[in-house]
Amino acid sequence: MAEKVVVIGGVALGPKAACRCMRLAPDTELTLVDENKLISYGGCGIPYFVSGEVQTVDALRSTPYQVLRDENFFRDLKNFTVRTQTRAVSIDRKAKTVRVRDCITGQEDTLPYDKLVIATGASPRVPPVPGHDLKNVLTLTRLEAADSIRKACEAGKVSEAVIVGGGFIGLEAAVALADMWGVKVSVVEMAGQVLPGVLSNTLGIMAGADLIQHGVNVYPAEKVLKLEGKDGAVFRVVTEKRTISAQLVIFAAGFIPNGQLAKDAGLDVTPFGAIMVDEHMRTSDPNIYSGGDCCSIRNILTGKPGYMPLGSMANRQGRVIGTNLAGGDATFPGYVGTWAVKLFEKSFAGAGLTVEGARKAGFDALSVVNEQVDRAHFYPEHGMMGLELVIEKGTKRVLGIQGVSANGDALKARVDAVATVLQFAKPTVQDIANLEVSYAPPFAAAMDIVNAVANVADNVLEGRMRAINGDEFIKLWQEREKNGIFFIDARPAKAGLAMQEKNPDWHAIPLEEFARRINEVPRDRPVALVCNTGLRAYDCLLVLKRNGYDDVVNAMGGMQAIKMMGLEP
Amino acid sequence: MAEKVVVIGGVALGPKAACRCMRLAPDTELTLVDENKLISYGGCGIPYFVSGEVQTVDALRSTPYQVLRDENFFRDLKNFTVRTQTRAVSIDRKAKTVRVRDCITGQEDTLPYDKLVIATGASPRVPPVPGHDLKNVLTLTRLEAADSIRKACEAGKVSEAVIVGGGFIGLEAAVALADMWGVKVSVVEMAGQVLPGVLSNTLGIMAGADLIQHGVNVYPAEKVLKLEGKDGAVFRVVTEKRTISAQLVIFAAGFIPNGQLAKDAGLDVTPFGAIMVDEHMRTSDPNIYSGGDCCSIRNILTGKPGYMPLGSMANRQGRVIGTNLAGGDATFPGYVGTWAVKLFEKSFAGAGLTVEGARKAGFDALSVVNEQVDRAHFYPEHGMMGLELVIEKGTKRVLGIQGVSANGDALKARVDAVATVLQFAKPTVQDIANLEVSYAPPFAAAMDIVNAVANVADNVLEGRMRAINGDEFIKLWQEREKNGIFFIDARPAKAGLAMQEKNPDWHAIPLEEFARRINEVPRDRPVALVCNTGLRAYDCLLVLKRNGYDDVVNAMGGMQAIKMMGLEP
Repeated sequence: MAEKVVVIGGVALGPKAACRCMRLAPDTELTLVDENKLISYGGCGIPYFVSGEVQTVDALRSTPYQVLRDENFFRDLKNFTVRTQTRAVSIDRKAKTVRVRDCITGQEDTLPYDKLVIATGASPRVPPVPGHDLKNVLTLTRLEAADSIRKACEAGKVSEAVIVGGGFIGLEAAVALADMWGVKVSVVEMAGQVLPGVLSNTLGIMAGADLIQHGVNVYPAEKVLKLEGKDGAVFRVVTEKRTISAQLVIFAAGFIPNGQLAKDAGLDVTPFGAIMVDEHMRTSDPNIYSGGDCCSIRNILTGKPGYMPLGSMANRQGRVIGTNLAGGDATFPGYVGTWAVKLFEKSFAGAGLTVEGARKAGFDALSVVNEQVDRAHFYPEHGMMGLELVIEKGTKRVLGIQGVSANGDALKARVDAVATVLQFAKPTVQDIANLEVSYAPPFAAAMDIVNAVANVADNVLEGRMRAINGDEFIKLWQEREKNGIFFIDARPAKAGLAMQEKNPDWHAIPLEEFARRINEVPRDRPVALVCNTGLRAYDCLLVLKRNGYDDVVNAMGGMQAIKMMGLEP
Repeated sequence: MAEKVVVIGGVALGPKAACRCMRLAPDTELTLVDENKLISYGGCGIPYFVSGEVQTVDALRSTPYQVLRDENFFRDLKNFTVRTQTRAVSIDRKAKTVRVRDCITGQEDTLPYDKLVIATGASPRVPPVPGHDLKNVLTLTRLEAADSIRKACEAGKVSEAVIVGGGFIGLEAAVALADMWGVKVSVVEMAGQVLPGVLSNTLGIMAGADLIQHGVNVYPAEKVLKLEGKDGAVFRVVTEKRTISAQLVIFAAGFIPNGQLAKDAGLDVTPFGAIMVDEHMRTSDPNIYSGGDCCSIRNILTGKPGYMPLGSMANRQGRVIGTNLAGGDATFPGYVGTWAVKLFEKSFAGAGLTVEGARKAGFDALSVVNEQVDRAHFYPEHGMMGLELVIEKGTKRVLGIQGVSANGDALKARVDAVATVLQFAKPTVQDIANLEVSYAPPFAAAMDIVNAVANVADNVLEGRMRAINGDEFIKLWQEREKNGIFFIDARPAKAGLAMQEKNPDWHAIPLEEFARRINEVPRDRPVALVCNTGLRAYDCLLVLKRNGYDDVVNAMGGMQAIKMMGLEP
């Protein structure tokens, strides 16, 4: 007899699992239910629909070959039944049935299953501040909300907006509104930086600077206290520190996994409410699978249950579930946390743990930052790229990588090269130094930046170089009266001299002249070196060391990193 | 007492090893000798100097921070001695000395060493055809030759050129001459395709098509018989099949490792003349290291000694040697063969084995080709990318990946993600299907193309889809009278109908209409499906299967791949 499969949830994982199952076991009687009207859309594309880069809602609902993924598509081409506006209200695991309710008529009926898939996703976290239910206070996870924001922008009704939350969706929305519609956007983020958790504080400052340089207000370490309305619609946002006018407020403050249905059915969920699954994406009931944003999966680096609500994870997991529904034996290994986001001029990406995250997870971690050209420096079309490598001190194990570049594809190449190794091995600094990435001058330097950042890490770990971040360098410079540090700018003479003219405490000694001018460096003061990227300064540091100067620090990433953080000496 | 180190060879590996050694052990007495005048240049940049994209020779000789790497640079900043135009003529391993000869005066002297590095590189292979020693017959590995080619182009003296060899350097030179100087270039390649060994025949045809579409003549499977001269300079090239006028001939027919010095000293070399080293880059004499283009290193995939003369390999190996010279314990794991090359509109990259290479190495291998958009299809700036995954049949082990895209950085991201896994694990098709690469709509599809090609491979391996390459599809089409195949174009109606009008044997049945028009497909004939990329056709194939049609093939990569091969039905 044909097996009966019910899938609860019609975005990303649900349809993927269903299609895969039907391909492998065409006789399956499969029904997919979703409480909404529109299903199977590219939710990650919503910010690009808001901006207008994606022109229609239907573009997000279509296959790459431009067929609309509606109920008919799944019936005619995938051979299964889709019931939209149908809510799963309870699961009877003993009877193996799902109770569903028609959202329009309220009528209920019961779907029997042999195998069940829970793909209920996650709900945006809306802090219960006064006014959160005013008109024009929205979240950005459903097409309907996106449509109304876009229409309001098109009608010129939004001149100021507040985004609550500086994560991926919040920042993508900020860029969409500011860049394409000229809206004055303010991002309010509780944490001390934007993209908290996925970027170190150093790179987080750079992400914030990219927003600020393009006219977005960034208010980190700040809480929204209340929203105030006029005629029922929001008109301003009150935080701990200020009041901001806004005709639109978007909450993008994270997600809460929709695990209640599973919990009510007695399935195991984590303390934060996500459904627990094994490597086969099976819940604690072997007949019930789950995946995507409602699930917790294993963090490969920490070994602990984690949470990574991304469309790409859901799609890959959906295929695994589909295979297993059809009697196959597919597994999903967990995640290391690989991501990317495009802001204005800069893109950011990362994999694994940040230095702060690694410490929180119990690792004795440090990180190094390297700024370097992203391909052969003699190749005309090169750009700068910054990479931060996170390392466990004793073992030299690499725990993560994050980076920034104007060329997102080139950045992705470096991050993904490390990300995939993190999934299969416990690479050391030496492994990344030897990482065999593709090379030709139009694509990479002979010593690629991903190798180079590992080499820098090795030098720091071996005590060959004391490295500080750009913001630390600026702090030392500002406190120079107190700390008595001797500051050296190793850039070509012109750049350094311009600074020296403004302030004689800034000593321009270019690398080219360093060996013969070494006596200008006092022997009884600590030395701080800076250059454009850190490379020249490192060569100077070696000359100083050979000459017996030991108390020397080098500003990693040099003036490039300092400028990218929006700072200056 | 300070250790004495001698380094033979001043390009890439030699200087890198020397600098690293001096950083770690500043007291070392290090001497580097090189028989040429110019050292430490970016040899891989030579084609870009020929084209004019790199403006001066000095740009290739400078650090990323624009300091010229001449003898003074190494003396003043790196603290070691460089003797240019000094040839190492023999090694006395017992006495631990190197005999060197001044190339100008002929005077010889002896350098004692505690540790020796042989970094003699490789020489371009020049087939001993008559006329190979004529004027304007050159190789492209030294700055001097590059300079004379560039000057001849600038003076308008070259209107036709022949490149012998369709490998990386040959094709980069072809692009440089044709694109930037308008030279009529012909590439003559002995093998049946360009980029033999690193691209499959299928992708090789695409590389050839990119050249042909930009006015370069490509003559694969053809041997040069002789060069003919006029007044001592070459004026035409005679092959097995034609005579080609040329004022310039460049031999780019591979490399011969310069292992003779090592062999004469009794060190182990491979049958093809490359120096053998262990994981520490040590030769059979523990006091002598070697690396770079003169060396054989282990191919991680085959486990056998291989050869991978790339500047990036040399740089990474140089650092390992430098560490070990200074008493450290660094290792180099071998190589999987990762590379990239930019042609005209298209870039190509790869890692690991090609399908033909895998079979030659004894694997029961197949490959699948997938053409797909390289990021979310709804994101406006997407492009096409083609990936070929090479798999061992029984184990489903992934042995290699190659690809093509107009966006080289995006292609590099996919290739490097697999390349680095190949270095640390023996990934299966499922591993690549689950590969956690970074995702956001501006950078990737939710199911990234690198995951998708593994999914296609899985379907082919499991017998769910019989896949053929674009050129095989065209061959079936051309032989349709004989094979009686029923051809179906599943693209949107317009595209398919245009073809059908030209030839009624071409049946336009778009995916959208497929289910209800299935009876138009005869049950007693084999079926061949094609669409734009292979995706629509796969959905049609599933519908056919559900309806009992079993003898169905799908053209992988669809019309995209066919067009990229320069073919048409």
